[in-house]
Amino acid sequence: MSPSRILWRCVVLISLAVFLLFRFAVSSFAGEEGSKTRKLPNFVIIFADDLGYGDLSCYGHPTIKTPNLDRMAAEGIRFTQFYSAAPVCTPSRAALMTGRLPIRSGMCSSKRRVLFPNSGSGLPAEEITLAEGLKTKGYHTACIGKWHLGHLPDFLPTRNGFDYYFGIPYSNDMDYVGERGKARKNMKRPRYRKWNVPLMRNEKIIERPANQNTITKRYTAEAIKFIKKNASEPFFVYLPHNLPHVPLFRSEAFEGHSTRGLYGDVIEEIDEGVGQIMATLKDLKIDNNTFVFFTSDNGPWLPFNQHGGSAGLLRGGKGSTWEGGMREPGIGWWPGKIPAGIVTQELGATMDLYTTCLTLAGVEIPKDRIVDGIDLSPVLFKNEKSPRQTMYYYRGTKLFAVRKGWWKMHFETRPGYGSRTSQVHVDPILFHLGQDPSEKYNIAKNHPDIVEELKSIAEKHRSHVKHVPSRLEIPPKKSRKNTP
Amino acid sequence: MSPSRILWRCVVLISLAVFLLFRFAVSSFAGEEGSKTRKLPNFVIIFADDLGYGDLSCYGHPTIKTPNLDRMAAEGIRFTQFYSAAPVCTPSRAALMTGRLPIRSGMCSSKRRVLFPNSGSGLPAEEITLAEGLKTKGYHTACIGKWHLGHLPDFLPTRNGFDYYFGIPYSNDMDYVGERGKARKNMKRPRYRKWNVPLMRNEKIIERPANQNTITKRYTAEAIKFIKKNASEPFFVYLPHNLPHVPLFRSEAFEGHSTRGLYGDVIEEIDEGVGQIMATLKDLKIDNNTFVFFTSDNGPWLPFNQHGGSAGLLRGGKGSTWEGGMREPGIGWWPGKIPAGIVTQELGATMDLYTTCLTLAGVEIPKDRIVDGIDLSPVLFKNEKSPRQTMYYYRGTKLFAVRKGWWKMHFETRPGYGSRTSQVHVDPILFHLGQDPSEKYNIAKNHPDIVEELKSIAEKHRSHVKHVPSRLEIPPKKSRKNTP
Repeated sequence: MSPSRILWRCVVLISLAVFLLFRFAVSSFAGEEGSKTRKLPNFVIIFADDLGYGDLSCYGHPTIKTPNLDRMAAEGIRFTQFYSAAPVCTPSRAALMTGRLPIRSGMCSSKRRVLFPNSGSGLPAEEITLAEGLKTKGYHTACIGKWHLGHLPDFLPTRNGFDYYFGIPYSNDMDYVGERGKARKNMKRPRYRKWNVPLMRNEKIIERPANQNTITKRYTAEAIKFIKKNASEPFFVYLPHNLPHVPLFRSEAFEGHSTRGLYGDVIEEIDEGVGQIMATLKDLKIDNNTFVFFTSDNGPWLPFNQHGGSAGLLRGGKGSTWEGGMREPGIGWWPGKIPAGIVTQELGATMDLYTTCLTLAGVEIPKDRIVDGIDLSPVLFKNEKSPRQTMYYYRGTKLFAVRKGWWKMHFETRPGYGSRTSQVHVDPILFHLGQDPSEKYNIAKNHPDIVEELKSIAEKHRSHVKHVPSRLEIPPKKSRKNTP
Repeated sequence: MSPSRILWRCVVLISLAVFLLFRFAVSSFAGEEGSKTRKLPNFVIIFADDLGYGDLSCYGHPTIKTPNLDRMAAEGIRFTQFYSAAPVCTPSRAALMTGRLPIRSGMCSSKRRVLFPNSGSGLPAEEITLAEGLKTKGYHTACIGKWHLGHLPDFLPTRNGFDYYFGIPYSNDMDYVGERGKARKNMKRPRYRKWNVPLMRNEKIIERPANQNTITKRYTAEAIKFIKKNASEPFFVYLPHNLPHVPLFRSEAFEGHSTRGLYGDVIEEIDEGVGQIMATLKDLKIDNNTFVFFTSDNGPWLPFNQHGGSAGLLRGGKGSTWEGGMREPGIGWWPGKIPAGIVTQELGATMDLYTTCLTLAGVEIPKDRIVDGIDLSPVLFKNEKSPRQTMYYYRGTKLFAVRKGWWKMHFETRPGYGSRTSQVHVDPILFHLGQDPSEKYNIAKNHPDIVEELKSIAEKHRSHVKHVPSRLEIPPKKSRKNTP
């Protein structure tokens, strides 16, 4: 072979090698991109019902043991300033699902606190739920637990972006069987047959009354089953437990489990479920790609005494716009992504979970409407300042209070339950939630500038909010036959 | 050599080998024993002043950051049922130092809550303090901080088993300079010169008024210096911070440190010191041989509003026998010996630290007197049931309440401060502290058997307690010249 031919062959071979290397690199890169698409993070939102700020061991409860939630906090981030968007159930859930204040979706009312079995409506179809948003990226979605955004077929989770639904459509104390006056007495040692609550799978009633004794563990089991089934594809599990809302139930294994009594048993069973879910994610080796968040819909239902929880040192409870009504435990967990052991005093709200999850999944936040949720990524992943600096406290359709930074001003206050009259503060009352977490010392007189600032924030907000007709007052169009 | 001689030599050699091996084993064993004697554990008791049950982040406070105490708890044990022996300062400290209820040493009174600068007495010489007990095993002992068991020379720490003393002899709000009526007003923005409190080294006043701005960090520095100096020998450091008792002070570095304001700054500076002490022990590689315990003398001084702390969801505060007056944070740390991350609901009390430490040091508990402290080793090191099952709640010289297991019964109640009259419960009131941690629901009527049991426990206790004359009422024998 002549030297020129040898050279030529060398050139050909080298070119081929370069080409192959380049192609390999390109395909690797594409593969990387491809796997990135496949590796969209999973989301698990665990939502308790009427759990108080002070009800977990890691939030200071002396006799309720929550080792799994404590560990979740130790391995993740624990918020001390995390809020639901309303002090009662239906509006709070609407806000979590839509990322919007309930006033914007009509999911609150000046007459009815929540939806009831005789309600004829639910979450409007125009609302874009978190599940619907995630569906656009191919997520597998499940709602397992209490829905309470409309029990009629048009409003069920399956019509709101969830592939799968297992749970009860409204509160576990509804559909009470028997004399109304005895409902409360029956709560002392609850028998589930006293509440004719339906348990549904997708759009069918599969059990009525739902056996609430085993409902918590069944929710956990359903969630785990769904996670296992969809482990290789992105999924979103929304797990709204219907407890510790009264009446309280727990499975046999948890009878007498807690020093705190029945209420503690219930929390400890939920905690056990949280542990099982974390363990499942670890076993499946998808814990590093799953964002888990635990919180609750509103504060403790105080008039139920020992059947209700505790807001710790916070003032008030469910139904009230004092801190105890809307401040909640908030624990985020994502091994390898959320730094371990963070206790943050930064602000967050359930509505922010909407925006945070959609953003993480690369879904565009709806532009044709106001979304109140804010992406909490800087707080969650970098322990930085929260983009959220304000909170609006609504009772029904009325703005009762507003918070900016550490300052909170009340225009109106009212006990959570038991009083039909509000106290309107012609001179709004002002508290520094950092220095005075129990809202004891009104210092409005010392800070006229702050009062003015908060008044103008509230005014601006009020003038921008479009009041839509309440959906909670709509009666059913037809007979409730074949519907829960 | 004949076979028999060879055999003989073999026997001799083997015997020699066996002898040497045996001797080596014996000497090794003795060496082990010897090093065991040298390896008596060190003790560090960090004692806050007027810190509330709810004032640490790991006990649920939303705006006080205590990362070091949180870590101490995460690496050790956190009690949710840990008590001081009295709801005010002097008797509480007497109990910690002697392992005995203050009623036994005369360190409580029906007339004066605590010792004052005009008091003429202090802890009786007959009492065997924890420091005196440990001295019998050659411990190096230091008291660094607030003593409050007698400021006259006869009663100082140096006369009670401490080799070294650095601190103030009574409360930081004593020796107020100026109009009495303005003392409270002056607490808002305290200037240390308003309180002519002496700072002592051993038995000499080295600074007066003590510069309280820097006192917390100086206590920490003194403790660390003592630990470093005595790292190779067993030591006991008793570190009773005189804060967060009002008036509140913190060093420049902690001004504006806490969201909780001045009170939070103070706690966060103490927390910083705890972290420095843990780091020192680790650096010296003696953390595995040192038992550190953090607690406080009594609950928060509630009438001081934001200058006082919070008992979280517990009822009452300092001065009261409701839980908030005597239940305290209690955190134990001993890497390698106390299992990490335990939250225990078992009972413990400051008096038990006396018995626990002496037992760990191999010191016999005094047999010639009643010692109320109990060795908490089963709880601390094995996460087992506590040998303590009862608690006696004294206000001054009077037994106000008694606890057995989860049951607590009050014979008499009185607000911590602000009221001169007690409410005597002819029918004692009964609470289940597990199910009702805030002492809201008197259920005496439902449990006549428990009421009787607790009555008889109290009766037995009362009949066994020998009332000794109160030492708090003794006036000084001579002029206070040259004494604090």
